Amino acid sequence: MSEVRVIKVEENVFAQNDIQAAANRARMTGNGTLFLNFMSGPGAGKTTTLAALINRLKEEFRIGVMDVDIRSSLDAQKVADATGIRAMQIHNGGLCHIDADMTAQALREYGTDDLDLLILENIGNMVCPAEFDTGAHKNVMLWSITEGDDKPLKYPLMFTVSDVVLINKIDALDYFDFDFEKAEQRLRALRPDTVIFPISAKTGEGLDAVADWIKGEIGGIKAPLTDG
Amino acid sequence: MSEVRVIKVEENVFAQNDIQAAANRARMTGNGTLFLNFMSGPGAGKTTTLAALINRLKEEFRIGVMDVDIRSSLDAQKVADATGIRAMQIHNGGLCHIDADMTAQALREYGTDDLDLLILENIGNMVCPAEFDTGAHKNVMLWSITEGDDKPLKYPLMFTVSDVVLINKIDALDYFDFDFEKAEQRLRALRPDTVIFPISAKTGEGLDAVADWIKGEIGGIKAPLTDG
Repeated sequence: MSEVRVIKVEENVFAQNDIQAAANRARMTGNGTLFLNFMSGPGAGKTTTLAALINRLKEEFRIGVMDVDIRSSLDAQKVADATGIRAMQIHNGGLCHIDADMTAQALREYGTDDLDLLILENIGNMVCPAEFDTGAHKNVMLWSITEGDDKPLKYPLMFTVSDVVLINKIDALDYFDFDFEKAEQRLRALRPDTVIFPISAKTGEGLDAVADWIKGEIGGIKAPLTDG
Repeated sequence: MSEVRVIKVEENVFAQNDIQAAANRARMTGNGTLFLNFMSGPGAGKTTTLAALINRLKEEFRIGVMDVDIRSSLDAQKVADATGIRAMQIHNGGLCHIDADMTAQALREYGTDDLDLLILENIGNMVCPAEFDTGAHKNVMLWSITEGDDKPLKYPLMFTVSDVVLINKIDALDYFDFDFEKAEQRLRALRPDTVIFPISAKTGEGLDAVADWIKGEIGGIKAPLTDG
């Protein structure tokens, strides 16, 4: 084994935004709106997956989407065109994340009172979005098999804060070395209760199960209001 | 076309580190060491590509590698094991980038005076690393065809600051919709002089051409010293 030295350089640039995130979450709970935050690296298939999930749910539920991007409006337009629902693009001015304050501003602009489900499509990035609680009820991460099965070792925070991990592009498994057993072990080492769905946004495989999970979560948000 | 609204939220968190970057670059030029900064999203194949390139160059040149990661030392170990050269892991404490000050600290720790080529493997991220000039002579970006051909539209800064773009995983082209003509148009719209190499780190296709480009750049750095 050849020589490897390790040095450590640190800096603190992370905003404390937990109070605003809790306020966002309380607002959405009060409305009976399930608020999901979708995160992933660039090109993992978030937009395609979201459009496919929305098309499975839009007859039954009132759904909204907010897409975060640095500059383009491609994602919001793609979701809107593919699903017919109202999608809002949030330009974050070149940042690698969206924080709870920006999310609160976007929630006000969008107007979320009449929704059963609001989806935030975060910026494609495996580092920054994990650091800022947006106030979503659940974090959902997409992990593409083309990225390799070592990603939980390298980007542990995002896998730790994600309640659900969708392992995408399984239609291309023949072309890539991706060990599902190792992947699951590495996920569970960070967070034993992660819900894992293997999917292909391209072929639709596995997406019904994800849609069923979302239905269940919407029920969970609404149940206390109904009972009260 | 369905409705899309755009709002803009901004924040300034970017450090001004151009002075330190220029000092890093001057130091490396003075040493006759070509300093390359490799950037990409997570899982685009940087480590595998670097190992393959180093193995093509290590008989002729003295090469060093510094790998940036949040927590793990996987990349440095992988490069060291695959090539036998000295690789240093830099832990950046959870940040999404490495800036010029951190780079300067790493250069001092590593000791770069006797190198012909020093490679910085940046953290897997398409946003933050592009914002901080490290002092490298050239920025080299890896873009995997599995990420889709729209990435320059969504992460324009990284493609703008990259002198060279390696389009990786072309061995999997049959499985993914990736339009090389569109990709090149989108690259050239951001930066007309980008040098583009289609490669497969897995099969080795295209890597000799990249190694030749690096040889040429090393010659360029050394030429003024030789002439003087």
